[in-house]
Order: sequence, then structure tokens, then C-alpha cells
Amino acid sequence: MNVKLQGRARHFRTVSFDSSRNEVLLIEQRLLPHEFRVIRTRNFGETAQAIANMIVRGAGAIGATAAFGLAQGARAFTAGGLAKFQRHVEQVYQTLKSARPTAVDPVTAMDQVGAAMKAGQTVAEQQALALAAAEEFANEDVRHCADIGRHGAKLIRGGMKVLTHCNAGWLAFVDIGSATAPLYAAQSQRKKFHVYCDETRPRSQGATLTAWELAQQNIPHHIISDSAAGHLMQRGGIDLVIVGSDRTLGRTGEVANKIGTYTKALLAREHKIPFYVAIPLSTIDWNLRSGFDIPIEQRHESEVLGAWGVIETKVQGRKAKGQRPSTGRRVYVRVANPGSGALNPGFDVTPPELITGIITPAGIFKPRQLWANRKKLGWHS
Amino acid sequence: MNVKLQGRARHFRTVSFDSSRNEVLLIEQRLLPHEFRVIRTRNFGETAQAIANMIVRGAGAIGATAAFGLAQGARAFTAGGLAKFQRHVEQVYQTLKSARPTAVDPVTAMDQVGAAMKAGQTVAEQQALALAAAEEFANEDVRHCADIGRHGAKLIRGGMKVLTHCNAGWLAFVDIGSATAPLYAAQSQRKKFHVYCDETRPRSQGATLTAWELAQQNIPHHIISDSAAGHLMQRGGIDLVIVGSDRTLGRTGEVANKIGTYTKALLAREHKIPFYVAIPLSTIDWNLRSGFDIPIEQRHESEVLGAWGVIETKVQGRKAKGQRPSTGRRVYVRVANPGSGALNPGFDVTPPELITGIITPAGIFKPRQLWANRKKLGWHS
Repeated sequence: MNVKLQGRARHFRTVSFDSSRNEVLLIEQRLLPHEFRVIRTRNFGETAQAIANMIVRGAGAIGATAAFGLAQGARAFTAGGLAKFQRHVEQVYQTLKSARPTAVDPVTAMDQVGAAMKAGQTVAEQQALALAAAEEFANEDVRHCADIGRHGAKLIRGGMKVLTHCNAGWLAFVDIGSATAPLYAAQSQRKKFHVYCDETRPRSQGATLTAWELAQQNIPHHIISDSAAGHLMQRGGIDLVIVGSDRTLGRTGEVANKIGTYTKALLAREHKIPFYVAIPLSTIDWNLRSGFDIPIEQRHESEVLGAWGVIETKVQGRKAKGQRPSTGRRVYVRVANPGSGALNPGFDVTPPELITGIITPAGIFKPRQLWANRKKLGWHS
Repeated sequence: MNVKLQGRARHFRTVSFDSSRNEVLLIEQRLLPHEFRVIRTRNFGETAQAIANMIVRGAGAIGATAAFGLAQGARAFTAGGLAKFQRHVEQVYQTLKSARPTAVDPVTAMDQVGAAMKAGQTVAEQQALALAAAEEFANEDVRHCADIGRHGAKLIRGGMKVLTHCNAGWLAFVDIGSATAPLYAAQSQRKKFHVYCDETRPRSQGATLTAWELAQQNIPHHIISDSAAGHLMQRGGIDLVIVGSDRTLGRTGEVANKIGTYTKALLAREHKIPFYVAIPLSTIDWNLRSGFDIPIEQRHESEVLGAWGVIETKVQGRKAKGQRPSTGRRVYVRVANPGSGALNPGFDVTPPELITGIITPAGIFKPRQLWANRKKLGWHS
């Protein structure tokens, strides 16, 4: 998508590859929204570090990063025959895999690259095939997101007010995003609409990443507190909700996503507002038989007890008393009572009866129809 | 309630009066939860300033502060007869009233003091009556909160997990509080229970004030993000919800309270969890005929776009990179994308069908039974 740099819009993918220098290019997401920078990893070790350190995050984005990292590692091999090369590639694979041990996307992506390499007879052939497969993985991610956008844009009519939660945007993928894809596609069709971004405490991905993305694309939007959507719905202020998903159960249609998604779905049903979930096929889990079996990560309490931001010396237009000048660097502030602890579940599960439809690259489905359409949806047992 | 100071619990009211020095004593709420300090206002002008500057906030607390401020101003008069005294008192009244022009409690409280003063024949008599009436207003606030606690404590059984939203605690009143009163009363009956405090973005009164109060009283609690309650309810983790109210419509049973209250009520109904609202009688509005007529304050966007807190140099037990040492002073940090704006409605309206009961000093009522019981509930047309 586009990023505004010195008044001009330039196109960036979240993840890309410089084959002449054998470097992976990544948008440094930890600096957003306060600073935009693209970093380069010079070897697969640095690429693994970038995944581990959350320089890059999001299902599609870390998948593509791992795929490029595997190709990068394979291409760096110069001294030896095929057997030694394969041991080297195995080591690269394990290093990248262990960068985010619970994530499934890096493994899926690297297995795709590994399978493609098998067709090569020499080290050089396998190296070339690795790069081609990694590029194809990234391009496929972009095509799938574009397909989600094409299907989802039909839901958006001019004048609509659309609510989103968290960030399932282009920063979480190679480009375009999942929950944001219908917005970008509708914009390209010249539809006018307004977006409300839930700030999405405790990590504030809505206020930081989604709002930043929308601002880059000139899509009109407001940030709201996570508590405000109910009031807006009561007063007719929201027409459509679109969110992403970390894991969708193919057998039941239950959707695990960022904490607070379930609440928005319940509010939407109460106010007869359509509630859609946009997903890439890789996040469908065909095995689990109940949402209660999805492990809910309990994250560190410091996320709830404070916030990360840049010190501002003017608040509400007035000089803030005693504030030191800002350096533009993000700091962590403790907001909560110092003697109190917090509980911090990272995700919740939304039942299928609250979901109007699931937007996939293969079309829009009722959540309970995923299983019947499993062959179209990349099912593998 | 008690405050822990150097390891010992000492009792404090939020607002009190030192008659020998003619000073109002106030807990400086803007420093909480990071620092506890009681300040003294030396004259009615300083008392009005303390109301205007939010050193004191909350319905009962600002009512008592204005009542004491009026007595303080009256008692400072030394030079002249009754006619001059009455002009002086009128000026004091107007100064205190204009400190928070939209609030109803200071006016109610000062009118009560003014009515009591009329029985005095001399300046000295009226001064004495003013102080007695202000003390009585504060004591009545305490008694009413104690009555709310007595009725509400019956709802709390041992082992329960209770959810609260925002702060309708003793800091918002002279003592005990409204939504917190049942908790404190149940604790004094030796019941064991656990409290979840919604952090209550954007101003975080749950994470700061309610959590601080509960910590002072040794009531076990956790802070949660405003998005987490739905997940906890799905897993059976919440048994009861108690919130306060800024305005309750006596004719319809609709409750206006901090933004996010409506969402919690809807979640509670979905999970068949009792949802109670605790209110002092002064917040019942007997005139309005529809919740849609309640004006919803749109607050400054900076509240949503950032947070106030104390810089911490250690996060998750590790040194935070590049953090400067904390001075213990609260700073404002911008969290959100700098190019984005926010919408910030301060309150929402919860319909009566989502409310199990309204806890008042006169007992617990179904929301739609307030009107039939209006004589018990201090109705005045």
C-alpha cells in the first residue's frame, strides 16, 4: 500500500526481497505510528531476529518473512556440495522456525519453499527455486488479500460507517490486509465511507497501526475507545463491522480473534448490524471441534497496567505542566494503581450465531457452511 | 475509608472540614494512584478552584465540598451587619456554583445550607448554622452510602467474582461510595470475594481510582481491559456486576453512566449474570421522559489518543530500552497515530430491560418500579 513520504505517496509491501543484495526488506513496525522506516536484514539470523523481536508481525507477514529468510539462507551458501547444502538449509529452517515457536505461518511458508526446492538437481538450481517459491508465497498472499477485498467490497455502500477492531491490515500481511482489504477495494471503486477504529487495548493496534494505515490511504476515520461502539450503535452510528481472525474453526464456524471481538459481535447482533470476519485460508483450523479447545494466551499484565507512547508537551492545546520536551521516542508509562495486578487474556472466541459471514479469498460463507465448502477452502485433514 | 500510610491504616473522608482553622480538607485526587496527599483550602476562592481543577470530583464529594465552601465563606465574614453578610454569602454561592457550572450537586448542597441559615437572627447564628448544615450534608452522604452498602451486600455471596466499571467509589462521595458500598459492607461481614475492575478508558478511573481504593481496603482484585469482560463471562468468571450512575431516569429506569456501561449490561444479560446499578437519590432525574433526551457529553479527543501515567524504567521485569529515569510525576503520552483524530462520547445510556435492580439508600428496586416508589425515593416534581 501507499505511504506518504515528504508529501508524496510511495508504494511499499510490508515484506519484500532485494535479490541482488540477498536482503529481506521489512517495515519496522515497532516504530509505527510515530516513525516510518524500512530495515534490511543481511542474513537469515537477522531475519529470524526480526521475527522474534516483532519488527514484523501478523500471519501473512511473518510467513513471507520466513519464506524469504529460508531463500536468503539457502542463497548465502557457497562452499560445498548438495549434502552439505541440505544440512545448512535444515539449520536455516530450524533457526527461523524457533523465532516464533507457536506461530503456524512461518512453518507453512517454509514447507512450501522446501517442497519447491526438491525439483532442483544442483545447489544453484535449488537456490534459484527457493527464491522463486518465496516470491510466489508473497505474491499469493497479496492475491488472496486482493480476493478478500473484491468479495468484501460488495458489502460496502457509499455513506456507510464501518467499525474495525485491532489490526488485520496490510501491515499484518504482505500487502492489502484481510479486514482492511474490503475498505481498500471499496475505496478504489470510489465509494465514500467512514471508518471507526477501536483503539484495541491493551496493545492499541487499532489506534496505532490501523489508524496509521488508513491515514496513509486517505480513508476518513476516527479512533474510538473500546467502550464507545455500543453507544454509537444505539444512535445509529455504525452500519457494518469487519474484523480479522487469528484462528477460525472450519468445523464449527467459531472465530478466535483479539480480545474484545466477541463483545463487538454481540453488540452488532443486538443492533441488527452485519458482522463480518475476513480471513486468509491459512487461519482456518480444520481439526478442533470446539472453541473451548482453543488455547487463550494469557499475556503479561504490564500491557493492561500501562501504555506505550510518545511524550507530548501540549495537551488539549495547552502546555502540559511539568512535561519534559518530547524526544519522539516511545516510553512506557504506568497508568494503573502501583499496588494492583491485572488479568490479560489476549483473545476471545466469537460463536457462529453472531457472525453474518466469513469473507475468504474464495468468497463469502456463513460460518456454519465452512465445513460443507471445505474443498474450496483449502481443507486438508 | 482507610488509607495505608507507612504500613498503618488511617481513616480519611474524601472531604472534611477543620472548623478551628476554617479550612476544607480534600484528598488531592489528581495525584492518585501514584501519590496520596490531603490538601487544605484556606478560603472559599481556593475551594471553588479545587472543584474547578478536579482536585475533587464525583457527585457526593463536590456537593459536600461546595457546602463546606459556603460555610467557609460565610464564617470568614467579620466586618458588617446582616444585609452586607447576605450579599457576601450570595457572592460566595455564585463563585462556588460557577466552579462546575453543569453539575447539579453543588447547587443542591448549597441550597440545603442556605435554607438552614435562614433560621439564624444574627451573622454569628447564621455562620454557626451554615457549618452545622454543611456537616449534616456530609454526614447524610455518608449515611446514604452506608445504606446502599447494607442493601447491596445481600447480593454478595462468599466466593463471588464481581465486575465494576469506572469509579463510583468513596473518592466520588464523602465516604464509602455507591457502586463500591456493597463491596465494603460485604467485607465488613467477613465475606470473601474477588473484584474485577474495568480499566475504563479513556480516563482509566477503574485502573487508577477504584483499584487504588480496593488496594487500601485489602480487597482482592484484578484490573482488566474494557474488552476482557466478555471473555471472562463466557468462561464463567463473573457472577455479579455493580456499577454507579451519573443520572437515572425516575420515569423510565434508564441509566446514564460512564461510556461502556451499556456494553457490560448487554454482556451480563447474554450470560444471565445479575447487573445492578447503585445510586444516591440525588442522581435520580424525575423530569426527563426518554434516555435519548439525556445530553451525552463529547469530551476532548486527547483522552482517547493518549494516556496519563508515570514513566517506568522496568517493563516485564526488564530494563526498558532508552527510558529515562522516572520522576514519579505523571506525564501524557500520545499513543495513537499522530495523523488521526478521535471521537470521545463520555457516557452512554443503559435501558431498563438490561438492569436487574437499582440499589438505593431506600432499598433495591426494579428499574421500572422507581416511579411507583417515588415518594420513598425523594421525588420532587
